[in-house]
Amino acid sequence: MDKQRWFHEAEPDGMGAMFREDRVLVDRQTKYQHIRIFEGKGVGRVMVLDGAMMLTEAHEFVYHEMLVHPAMLAHPCPRQVLVIGGGDGGTLREVCKHPEVECATLCEIDQDVIDLSREFIPSTAVGLDHPKAVIHVGDGIQYLKDHDGQFDVIMVDSTDPVGFAEGLFRRPFYEDVQRALRPGGILVQQTESPFMVRKEWWTPTFQHLRSVFPKVYPFGASIPMYPTGYWTFALASQSEDPWTSFQPDRVSRLENLKYYQPGHQQAAFVLPRFAKELLDDVL
Amino acid sequence: MDKQRWFHEAEPDGMGAMFREDRVLVDRQTKYQHIRIFEGKGVGRVMVLDGAMMLTEAHEFVYHEMLVHPAMLAHPCPRQVLVIGGGDGGTLREVCKHPEVECATLCEIDQDVIDLSREFIPSTAVGLDHPKAVIHVGDGIQYLKDHDGQFDVIMVDSTDPVGFAEGLFRRPFYEDVQRALRPGGILVQQTESPFMVRKEWWTPTFQHLRSVFPKVYPFGASIPMYPTGYWTFALASQSEDPWTSFQPDRVSRLENLKYYQPGHQQAAFVLPRFAKELLDDVL
Repeated sequence: MDKQRWFHEAEPDGMGAMFREDRVLVDRQTKYQHIRIFEGKGVGRVMVLDGAMMLTEAHEFVYHEMLVHPAMLAHPCPRQVLVIGGGDGGTLREVCKHPEVECATLCEIDQDVIDLSREFIPSTAVGLDHPKAVIHVGDGIQYLKDHDGQFDVIMVDSTDPVGFAEGLFRRPFYEDVQRALRPGGILVQQTESPFMVRKEWWTPTFQHLRSVFPKVYPFGASIPMYPTGYWTFALASQSEDPWTSFQPDRVSRLENLKYYQPGHQQAAFVLPRFAKELLDDVL
Repeated sequence: MDKQRWFHEAEPDGMGAMFREDRVLVDRQTKYQHIRIFEGKGVGRVMVLDGAMMLTEAHEFVYHEMLVHPAMLAHPCPRQVLVIGGGDGGTLREVCKHPEVECATLCEIDQDVIDLSREFIPSTAVGLDHPKAVIHVGDGIQYLKDHDGQFDVIMVDSTDPVGFAEGLFRRPFYEDVQRALRPGGILVQQTESPFMVRKEWWTPTFQHLRSVFPKVYPFGASIPMYPTGYWTFALASQSEDPWTSFQPDRVSRLENLKYYQPGHQQAAFVLPRFAKELLDDVL
């Protein structure tokens, strides 16, 4: 094996993932982070931020479909949607499939992620140019403070909870989210893998969420591009659970689904027992 | 990163997994395969057969619980169980948790896997020494031919469908399984990951199964130690589906579960949409 040509993502618990690099397209420090985009062998193009895998073209569909559709379908009529982060455009692409959407606003802190995605990852960047999409470059936390009571669904499509994204996983942020939501509004956020050592982060994050939102539902999906292959999300609201407003016929109107099917609206919420138990005292 | 000390499992589609090796305990050719056992960093001991990851102590629980419990709980009263392969003992360990079991027979072709598991992986090998366990060293295909109408559940806990395990995924074998089952009997088998390139193997395997069993149900689990992190299984029977005989109170009698919870009896059967679609014409 030619070791020079594999990108390695090693986790502190002694596991790691590797991806074959055929050709490096971008390798640059932006104002906020280091970005690397390469042509992967077999998995399409690959984007890495600060050494952490963000997406492969082959498997981004799982992450983006599962961040978006359970939350959108939990809301009876999601007209105004805000995505914090998500500069690659994949989340917007999935949001804009929903005919109820009038406006999908993206608030991404790093202009370079948007520009480089447009140049090198057209399959996700197509979401950035959807007629219903509005792109705002800036700090998501500040953006929320300026937009009280405006959104039906807020999605936090962020990097790992370290560095500048750390504040997106704590109570003050969730209070801002809460104020920015319309009545009946829903928050959804990626919440890492419970299989990883960062367990000491996992339970407290749900605790912070639960201190602001009366209803918090963790769910998961099998995402081969991310460490351990199992990734979780939190869906939080004032009153709605993910099932009361669920109408399976809305799913049939969504084009080009590759992962989500109606059964996931229940099935994704069945966590591994050990993960559920980590949250039993919190939720 | 000290590359000498990571075990790499590279897949042909340009992805791979790596596991930190602290100390190699076994590295030997047996009569049937190459076996390597090492002390992993953070994931406990690790067993590799012919270069393919078999188990890590940290995550074998997912594979073994999900191979065993959905099938056992789909059967109203599984008294006689046969495990083909599974020489590490983990599957037996889970089978013997069910109070209905009178006898759990293991038929493993490679004596060395049994012996080395006993020596180095006591957490799974404990199943080999359960009072209800009977160990038979030999060829599973021949064993089946000699035991018509004897088993309530047959589990195929094999290596990848290449080399000597290839015959365990084809119609003649399924016909032998069928004859070895008692009326109402159930087969369960690991069936790899639909995310991997071996797709051209996946659909035909279910076709072979379906040509023998009128009821075939694929299901999946998130198994961090295996490529892509998502692994599937097939549950097949003459008449039963996985839900009719399911009694949630039987789950509460199973000790030390870490992955399976009652909700999985439905949730695990909701596949990624693309995987379901690969089987739509077959099942």
